[in-house]
Amino acid sequence: MTSSPMLTKEDIGHKLAAVYAPIASELAESERIFAGELKSRFPFVQDLVGHCAAFQGKRLRPALVLLTAQACGGIRPAHPVLAAVVEMIHTATLVHDDILDEAIVRRHAATVNAEWGNETAVLMGDYLFTHAFHLAASLETTLACRWIGRATNLVCEGEMQQVHNRGNVDLDEAAYFDIIRGKTAELTAVSARLGAQYAGADAATVDAMDQYGRNLGVAFQIADDVLDIWGDERTTGKSLGTDLEKQKLTLPLIRLLSTSPAPLAARLCRMINEPTEETRGELRPYLESSGALEYAWDRAKAFASLAGKALDILPDTAAKGLLRNLTQYVVRRSA
Amino acid sequence: MTSSPMLTKEDIGHKLAAVYAPIASELAESERIFAGELKSRFPFVQDLVGHCAAFQGKRLRPALVLLTAQACGGIRPAHPVLAAVVEMIHTATLVHDDILDEAIVRRHAATVNAEWGNETAVLMGDYLFTHAFHLAASLETTLACRWIGRATNLVCEGEMQQVHNRGNVDLDEAAYFDIIRGKTAELTAVSARLGAQYAGADAATVDAMDQYGRNLGVAFQIADDVLDIWGDERTTGKSLGTDLEKQKLTLPLIRLLSTSPAPLAARLCRMINEPTEETRGELRPYLESSGALEYAWDRAKAFASLAGKALDILPDTAAKGLLRNLTQYVVRRSA
Repeated sequence: MTSSPMLTKEDIGHKLAAVYAPIASELAESERIFAGELKSRFPFVQDLVGHCAAFQGKRLRPALVLLTAQACGGIRPAHPVLAAVVEMIHTATLVHDDILDEAIVRRHAATVNAEWGNETAVLMGDYLFTHAFHLAASLETTLACRWIGRATNLVCEGEMQQVHNRGNVDLDEAAYFDIIRGKTAELTAVSARLGAQYAGADAATVDAMDQYGRNLGVAFQIADDVLDIWGDERTTGKSLGTDLEKQKLTLPLIRLLSTSPAPLAARLCRMINEPTEETRGELRPYLESSGALEYAWDRAKAFASLAGKALDILPDTAAKGLLRNLTQYVVRRSA
Repeated sequence: MTSSPMLTKEDIGHKLAAVYAPIASELAESERIFAGELKSRFPFVQDLVGHCAAFQGKRLRPALVLLTAQACGGIRPAHPVLAAVVEMIHTATLVHDDILDEAIVRRHAATVNAEWGNETAVLMGDYLFTHAFHLAASLETTLACRWIGRATNLVCEGEMQQVHNRGNVDLDEAAYFDIIRGKTAELTAVSARLGAQYAGADAATVDAMDQYGRNLGVAFQIADDVLDIWGDERTTGKSLGTDLEKQKLTLPLIRLLSTSPAPLAARLCRMINEPTEETRGELRPYLESSGALEYAWDRAKAFASLAGKALDILPDTAAKGLLRNLTQYVVRRSA
């Protein structure tokens, strides 16, 4: 892993702050819109909304809307609304993901399911989803609703495929990429696409920004999957090794299984299908010596590089430079 | 209960068939749109979609869209789309409700949570929600997305309030009506409202249809709550006494507690807060002798009557007559 230094949480915080500085006021505006849309007359619901707002971490998706807008002609009034919408969709998926993962910690705070129970978490996710569409429908045309609806459908399909394939040690790379293109890359793609479209960009530029967001999302998810098996709870802010615990096969494991001699592969499959507290530690030497971790990291970097190439269509601006910087940070991070 | 004969499932089936006959082809069209929207390239997802489509029972909400349209100027091409949208939203809430209720049977079929697990049920509900908005966004303007978004938000708030108040024996009638106005009546109200609006009705008529759907929904929910404590599994097609099991206080119990002398009320509260297999049978004599069941039934009929009055604004047509018939069936039914 020497070629991919793990930045500390502070390092990455400083770097993202620099990327976000030129869109700081619009990000703040999108957060006001987010909070305003979710106001409830029920104190219990309002508490939940406040709790979920704290899940906002890197704010990658709203930043994508705003930075692509800036790089494609300038931020317009619709953009902070769209930024709030994509963050609300993302937050809804996090709340529901935490139920699926039985996670208890999210960004150093209790998950909704851990604090209020699964039932409230199901409804809170629904509340966020439907508010996102309500907010998207406040724009002039149905375009955002259609695009976000389509993207969110594919996110759900990707997640359903993932749940369906738990414990399936025969999952191959193609199926893995199919899953993460749905569950993660659809939303980053539509974020960048919306940013460009609502800035008045031409069709070729809108498509290029879609490709940028899509490849960035894939790179980001691979890195996330590597960190799930490699990082530690202190830096990721999540429970340890959720994927292993839930028998989700991710790229490092898929690579390890496909490159191991049959007897070893069979032994590894048994470890994966009957995970214990020790499994993660036991798999690590194999992941490292086989080169599977390095392979996954290289794939992440290749997708980040594709994302960078999609930016070539843009004129040289400060915003374009920041979008390019993002492609490096998503695969050089600790959290 | 002599004044409110429990119709058999066959009786009500015949009566609803008569109500739906004039909109049969449009209902069939909305079912084709429903199935078409949910097509997935993943066989696993397609199986789930097929299973959930079978949950469609009374098709009350799509029928409301189409019958109000017919009564307010005629069915237009947008109406079958809107009918599919409200049924999809309703199906999404059923799939998620079954998780909350830990229900195992829905319309004589296994619930998604019982057959595929809670995780898949969470995602399937999300899939239906987001497809509903995607479909609504296929219409010309954002109006349907906005109205349905707003209504669905209030449905979620009502459900969250209900979960929050489980086991709360101090829940009063006002809070109960607040909950059911959200969780049930918002969606029937918006169904009738959309039917009128997209038929070109004037604002007063659209508002009256909203009131029709709203009061019909409240009547329907009270009747449903009475049946949960009074009907049997064979006729309702649901697990026995879900509300009692989940310590949901509904109108019959709220009325019983508020009219019982303090020592009896205290004993009943203990029974409600520590439900067993026998609780339902033990509560029945109290519910009956106190008049609480009859009271709840009368309230349901009063709301049904309000719904009927809201129809006065309409010219006399066959469709108006069918809408009026519906107000009688919702409180005279066995399932």
